[in-house]
Amino acid sequence: MHKAAAETEKCPDASQRSETDSLGRMVLPAAALHGIHTERALRNFPITGVPLSHFPDLVKALAMVKKAAALANRDLGALPTDIAMPIIAVCDEIVAGQHHHHFVVDMIQGGAGTSTNMNTNEVIANLALNRLGYASGSYSRLHPNDHVNCSQSTNDVYPTALRLATLQACEPLLGEQARLSAAFAERGRCFSDVLKVGRTQLQDAVPITLGMEFASFAETIDEDIDRVRQISELLKEVNLGGTAVGTGVNTPAGYPSLVVRHLSTVSGIELSEARNRIEASSDLGAFVMFSSALKRIAVKISKICNDLRLLSSGPRAGIGEIHLPPVQAGSSIMPGKVNPVIPEMVNQVAYQVIGNDLTVTLAAEAGQLQLNAMEPVLIFNVLQSMRMLTRAFEVLTDRCVSGIEADRTRCEALLTGSLVPVTALVPLIGYETATNIAKVARESGRSLAEVAIETGAMSAQDIERLLTPSNMLGLISEGPPASSGQ
Amino acid sequence: MHKAAAETEKCPDASQRSETDSLGRMVLPAAALHGIHTERALRNFPITGVPLSHFPDLVKALAMVKKAAALANRDLGALPTDIAMPIIAVCDEIVAGQHHHHFVVDMIQGGAGTSTNMNTNEVIANLALNRLGYASGSYSRLHPNDHVNCSQSTNDVYPTALRLATLQACEPLLGEQARLSAAFAERGRCFSDVLKVGRTQLQDAVPITLGMEFASFAETIDEDIDRVRQISELLKEVNLGGTAVGTGVNTPAGYPSLVVRHLSTVSGIELSEARNRIEASSDLGAFVMFSSALKRIAVKISKICNDLRLLSSGPRAGIGEIHLPPVQAGSSIMPGKVNPVIPEMVNQVAYQVIGNDLTVTLAAEAGQLQLNAMEPVLIFNVLQSMRMLTRAFEVLTDRCVSGIEADRTRCEALLTGSLVPVTALVPLIGYETATNIAKVARESGRSLAEVAIETGAMSAQDIERLLTPSNMLGLISEGPPASSGQ
Amino acid sequence: MHKAAAETEKCPDASQRSETDSLGRMVLPAAALHGIHTERALRNFPITGVPLSHFPDLVKALAMVKKAAALANRDLGALPTDIAMPIIAVCDEIVAGQHHHHFVVDMIQGGAGTSTNMNTNEVIANLALNRLGYASGSYSRLHPNDHVNCSQSTNDVYPTALRLATLQACEPLLGEQARLSAAFAERGRCFSDVLKVGRTQLQDAVPITLGMEFASFAETIDEDIDRVRQISELLKEVNLGGTAVGTGVNTPAGYPSLVVRHLSTVSGIELSEARNRIEASSDLGAFVMFSSALKRIAVKISKICNDLRLLSSGPRAGIGEIHLPPVQAGSSIMPGKVNPVIPEMVNQVAYQVIGNDLTVTLAAEAGQLQLNAMEPVLIFNVLQSMRMLTRAFEVLTDRCVSGIEADRTRCEALLTGSLVPVTALVPLIGYETATNIAKVARESGRSLAEVAIETGAMSAQDIERLLTPSNMLGLISEGPPASSGQ
Amino acid sequence: MHKAAAETEKCPDASQRSETDSLGRMVLPAAALHGIHTERALRNFPITGVPLSHFPDLVKALAMVKKAAALANRDLGALPTDIAMPIIAVCDEIVAGQHHHHFVVDMIQGGAGTSTNMNTNEVIANLALNRLGYASGSYSRLHPNDHVNCSQSTNDVYPTALRLATLQACEPLLGEQARLSAAFAERGRCFSDVLKVGRTQLQDAVPITLGMEFASFAETIDEDIDRVRQISELLKEVNLGGTAVGTGVNTPAGYPSLVVRHLSTVSGIELSEARNRIEASSDLGAFVMFSSALKRIAVKISKICNDLRLLSSGPRAGIGEIHLPPVQAGSSIMPGKVNPVIPEMVNQVAYQVIGNDLTVTLAAEAGQLQLNAMEPVLIFNVLQSMRMLTRAFEVLTDRCVSGIEADRTRCEALLTGSLVPVTALVPLIGYETATNIAKVARESGRSLAEVAIETGAMSAQDIERLLTPSNMLGLISEGPPASSGQ
Repeated sequence: MHKAAAETEKCPDASQRSETDSLGRMVLPAAALHGIHTERALRNFPITGVPLSHFPDLVKALAMVKKAAALANRDLGALPTDIAMPIIAVCDEIVAGQHHHHFVVDMIQGGAGTSTNMNTNEVIANLALNRLGYASGSYSRLHPNDHVNCSQSTNDVYPTALRLATLQACEPLLGEQARLSAAFAERGRCFSDVLKVGRTQLQDAVPITLGMEFASFAETIDEDIDRVRQISELLKEVNLGGTAVGTGVNTPAGYPSLVVRHLSTVSGIELSEARNRIEASSDLGAFVMFSSALKRIAVKISKICNDLRLLSSGPRAGIGEIHLPPVQAGSSIMPGKVNPVIPEMVNQVAYQVIGNDLTVTLAAEAGQLQLNAMEPVLIFNVLQSMRMLTRAFEVLTDRCVSGIEADRTRCEALLTGSLVPVTALVPLIGYETATNIAKVARESGRSLAEVAIETGAMSAQDIERLLTPSNMLGLISEGPPASSGQ
Repeated sequence: MHKAAAETEKCPDASQRSETDSLGRMVLPAAALHGIHTERALRNFPITGVPLSHFPDLVKALAMVKKAAALANRDLGALPTDIAMPIIAVCDEIVAGQHHHHFVVDMIQGGAGTSTNMNTNEVIANLALNRLGYASGSYSRLHPNDHVNCSQSTNDVYPTALRLATLQACEPLLGEQARLSAAFAERGRCFSDVLKVGRTQLQDAVPITLGMEFASFAETIDEDIDRVRQISELLKEVNLGGTAVGTGVNTPAGYPSLVVRHLSTVSGIELSEARNRIEASSDLGAFVMFSSALKRIAVKISKICNDLRLLSSGPRAGIGEIHLPPVQAGSSIMPGKVNPVIPEMVNQVAYQVIGNDLTVTLAAEAGQLQLNAMEPVLIFNVLQSMRMLTRAFEVLTDRCVSGIEADRTRCEALLTGSLVPVTALVPLIGYETATNIAKVARESGRSLAEVAIETGAMSAQDIERLLTPSNMLGLISEGPPASSGQ
Repeated sequence: MHKAAAETEKCPDASQRSETDSLGRMVLPAAALHGIHTERALRNFPITGVPLSHFPDLVKALAMVKKAAALANRDLGALPTDIAMPIIAVCDEIVAGQHHHHFVVDMIQGGAGTSTNMNTNEVIANLALNRLGYASGSYSRLHPNDHVNCSQSTNDVYPTALRLATLQACEPLLGEQARLSAAFAERGRCFSDVLKVGRTQLQDAVPITLGMEFASFAETIDEDIDRVRQISELLKEVNLGGTAVGTGVNTPAGYPSLVVRHLSTVSGIELSEARNRIEASSDLGAFVMFSSALKRIAVKISKICNDLRLLSSGPRAGIGEIHLPPVQAGSSIMPGKVNPVIPEMVNQVAYQVIGNDLTVTLAAEAGQLQLNAMEPVLIFNVLQSMRMLTRAFEVLTDRCVSGIEADRTRCEALLTGSLVPVTALVPLIGYETATNIAKVARESGRSLAEVAIETGAMSAQDIERLLTPSNMLGLISEGPPASSGQ
Repeated sequence: MHKAAAETEKCPDASQRSETDSLGRMVLPAAALHGIHTERALRNFPITGVPLSHFPDLVKALAMVKKAAALANRDLGALPTDIAMPIIAVCDEIVAGQHHHHFVVDMIQGGAGTSTNMNTNEVIANLALNRLGYASGSYSRLHPNDHVNCSQSTNDVYPTALRLATLQACEPLLGEQARLSAAFAERGRCFSDVLKVGRTQLQDAVPITLGMEFASFAETIDEDIDRVRQISELLKEVNLGGTAVGTGVNTPAGYPSLVVRHLSTVSGIELSEARNRIEASSDLGAFVMFSSALKRIAVKISKICNDLRLLSSGPRAGIGEIHLPPVQAGSSIMPGKVNPVIPEMVNQVAYQVIGNDLTVTLAAEAGQLQLNAMEPVLIFNVLQSMRMLTRAFEVLTDRCVSGIEADRTRCEALLTGSLVPVTALVPLIGYETATNIAKVARESGRSLAEVAIETGAMSAQDIERLLTPSNMLGLISEGPPASSGQ
């Protein structure tokens, strides 16, 4: 007998009960709602300290799957009604948010989620037993495997629950994305008349409005919302009913389609059966894509936060075109310094999400033959990324974006002092002449108008007409100068 | 004057011509079709040694954009017809595959693609000049910037061309994906009656057929085809017409929508205008998503190749259920060894694609304000990944998958000797009894049937009925044993 | 006034106190040991839910830095002794493990660690005030900034504490690496006479012993121990004394070297001053390297766990040369299945560490000018990776490796049935002849010896001499057959 | 017979020769220096289009290994002198740079490098045969396997050559790192008196000099030089002599240590035997570490280039404290724009190196049992990263850093107009008073001195003394104000 199996313990007193599995007997507190399989998992996986209950969406999804299975088993006669009903009732309670603290296994676990499934089976069995008036552990009456897990395998229950949990976690994320987009759009409308220097490659380029910049932030987030909706559709195809490897071994006739229909009803999400359940048992491609969509959100919000930090840099020796609302003192040594702490936090969340996406990728690649055993670390990272993005967006909206103010004076001063308007001259005087004017102005430190007039390239009147801020604003919104179609 | 600008050179003889830009004068071979901007770029970016011409799809895409712009400019009177027509004619030649070797700039370049755009402008201008009977460099008659680049900026030309190039490169990739899927499906049909051990977590699990395994490979590739099609749609929205930062500065009225319509016709791909051109000028989100789809392909094909290597491991001291066609001698020291070299190559391509995706991610995140200057490394990696996947799939189909043979004797022997069929007993004798039988068999090294009968759990007849290969094959395809609905 | 700053609250009763900073006044529970800066941080960064106290090594390191600063300030007269002494006493208590639950700020935070530093300054100030008999918040007597943070900036305190925390976390990691290496070495010695098939590219290759395989696992871990020791040296160079940007602004003469000397004494780790404190203020290169060493550990342990899973695959339809100790039942549906759950868990930890390393890389790259503001996410990932590796190694040693058993019968059977010994014939009969023998044997399914004798390439006697297991074992340990030097 | 093996071709004429291996016969051009194994590899791996010859360091390293083996075999009598001598002579020619174009196999290949080793064996055999007056392909006289590969396996030759190639490629990289560091140091000395705003979190922080910034760039690169030297030491331990799996099967007694000694002499690099050759056969940990060092270089140079782009941003509406030398015109549409194209190129190289490091990581993790078959993609990425970094550093030094100029007027103007000097007041007036002064100045837009005097916190004289640029320069270099040690 192997050492590890020898952890079987002796003689419980009244406050204890014992359970037995193929490795031997263990003692548990009599009142514990989890059983021997969970207990072994606790000893095997003391890794992150983050239990299943940390992600309520996952716990609820597991209960929904168990409920759907019990309903289908009852309908098909695979479970007697008096066994199925208490299971269903208990599942409803869990979906309603009760009993979550009994989901104690570590999020990172070996065994392809078996410990998560057994934690679920055991808690539901014992809750159902208690509800029927039996003591926890009286499995001869209602059994975690034979009844709660009837017609199921970890290999279809767990992946289905992961999909469902992710779909549920989409809603708050989408909500915060929409709020952030709306905040950027609102600011953009306020700033629609703030003409300023547009910059490419960090070099002064052509005129733009601050409103356009903020509207483009809103737009880019709106596109991400579309992506999350589009890609999350892939998660709606589930392998429930495939059991161990997708062949549906040990399921009653008609079960697979019935259980998926029940799960759609139970969850309120329109799910469908996997086209090929064998493939669906080992493939995590939908999560690779979904995590990539989260990575895309991270990449874009990181760029936006970098922009906010650039635009608010200074306040005096940087760009300083906008002011972020101060939310805490900036420095323990430099008095009065106010730092862009919220965007900095969001950047860091973005780095975490990108790193997590790599972990997801590695886990997905590690499938072998009929299963991918690395799903636990995958879902841990997907749910963590979703939660962090959701929270970061909420804070970014409320504590930063909605309070951003334009420094109109500085925007105008920087534009007027720059060489940016020269591009507007090209249609009138050609690229090479305009280049020379810009070069002379740059090297001499003089203004564009001054040099343009001096070289005789344009009249003072023409230049005046073209380069006033109000005219430039017109150019941007309405198109090119009348003379450009020559 | 800065040192780097001082590279202006002297007095050319007849075989040379000189050109001048804002930094000074340079000497070029008289016959060179590229000009001073390209020449400077060659000196600035001697990095990868991979020129633009290495990716014909990119060169063609650039020419298509230039043609569409010339057409739109002609229509709107921004270019006289006698200037527009030779430009268009030259573009047609480039699209047809001519002149590509004049696209000499390194794929990795600073400047957000300006050097690529100027290489294109200069080559087209000089080809057009030659066609009109003028010497290369006679830009007063037809100018790279004023005419070829009319109404354009690198910042709308380059991103648009990148999208178009990627869309064109999709076709061969999709073709090879389809061929590989078909090869797996064809093998799957041949193997549909090969009953074997299904494995989860590398442990003998439940019966399956080799045909199911191969069909699931086909299925997973088919899903990737869907993803490539779906995600590539995002690339069809282009920012052409936005010029420098998306405001459309220096374009004639009506130009943006007209040029996109022309480009759709020229390319044969239905393109649309970006909803928000400011956003589209700096955002590379579509490429992040597309590269993620390539990564997903890589993740899945890597898993498939790992499976092929596992299933063909041995030949005697491994699994050995299939034989890959030998394509080269396996070892310089071990006689007769034949290695799975094609799948190993594909695994490595997958690792490259995953690494490239990270580079794409980093480049996309590095956008700043109105532009992303890191597009060159992004497209280098996207096109390289696509080419490598396309070629790897072609080789995998022709030199490996289509020649795979089943070792039917071994499949049957391994199944018969295993404990795998025990799962089929659960609905009849319950999970715990079945577990005990499996445990005794495992520890004693005896067969399942022997132990099951001995324990009295089942009659010899029942076990016979359940565990013969032919019956198990029936179970898999048709569902559970009749008694399971009890 | 910006909205976010308007969160100043009103009139506390006796159970409350109020504090004021540049943004306004806030109310805190009178007994709270943290102050207004921490309180604002709690509202700004509700991101991961993981507080500083989750990493005791970090809290201790912060207290050590504060103690060293107080000692140096006292020595140089920058702090009066009656202020310095209570600060020092409080730091000692924190180092001893007390008060950690007052370190409440989220690990991911904007502001380059300012909130962590202020949480530390405020808790120490209030503990010191209480010790002196004053109420929390009586900062006119002992001030978080003016006294606890005297001669310091977040920008030297925080990076120094991160280095110190990481160095402290090395010890348990190194300890578990050593235990795991010892377990593999011990198993290796037990298996030193177990001759078996060596495999390259998953194909049967040449003979080897199981002992050699396990000894090589021990060796590879030992090399990692060397790397952790070597790379962690880089962390011993600290920028303490550089304050805001490394110029040492606002430190008394002599402070920088003195404070580092004190910190060496306080921590028991021999630290040194950064060669260039400006550089050290923004550079995180040492962490990039250290995280890479963690990644290397992850890569190697993942390979080892993959090997353990391969070698224990089956038990009957795989390799099955070793048995891992069963630590939990394997399946909720397949009776008697035992899975390699511990190695699977370790694989997942490895994926997490590799993903975390990417986050560290991204954070390190994001430094700007005189600072890297992304340190919080960096240290979060470094410490999390270290903890997960430490725990995973502990479990792997105790619950898997130390209980692994060889299946000697199977090792011998697989070797005898294979073509592996053919390589030993090459020096006697040449590569081509040996290749032919192997080929015939492979295609006919016959044994090597049989075919070799039949072809006349060798006598039955010679082949007997060469291919018996005992002789092969001799070959491996002692070198080539006598005839090889011909 | 499998299809793929059926590519055997027929009846060559005089310009052709045929060769045979275990798969059949193939026809080659009579003059071809490579043989049948290489020819098959060309058909199997048409992936990247990058042949071995693209990396001369690798080809030379392979020849050095073959020479060392021939020397050792000759010394031990395993090869007759008249076979060994022509092999050695040919190797010398290859090391001298000849014959490289015959190394035609694709860098990415299956088979763990077997095709590379056989390409080498075949080319050397044929060159040696030609030198002896025999036709290519006359292998009965001098055989690629029996002679050139004598006492070797791909599994020790290839990894050893990879290490040697990497070590050789270090020299030019180290050289360019040193030149870049020197250029930064030289600029730093020129800028040592340029006082300016130091920035943390992109916010104006405390005074610093431009010289300090550039000196810190030099320092950070110097540290990387140390790391490359330190980590490359790990590559000096080679597994040559271990043959197939490290047991040294088929090597003459005394060969392993002798061949490594010969290789040290041949290469001029002091190599050592792997402590455990079994472990060394499958472990790529040294490359993981080395690639991590390259990644660290990339991370740091990316940060430096970001800083150069920030500091040169504007020129008028950004920071604009330095001017990068213009090396090409900046825009096809915006006249006179000059972009930081060299730093942008370097950023992109950094992203490629970071992506490549991930590919290296994935390849290293994929080792199985006695071998890692993924080495080809690993070395492809390592050598490509080294070459790109080397070239990028050369261009950065010559075309950017050495020509950077300070804008002294702007540095002084930005500093004078900022609130940065307020930190210098803290030791005199306390953190809170200083904070208030900064806040009033910030909100009113007035100068620091003005507000400080008005509030009565300091006399006009004191403030004058503290805040003049010359005094601040003194503070930075010499330490704190006299009053700070109070």
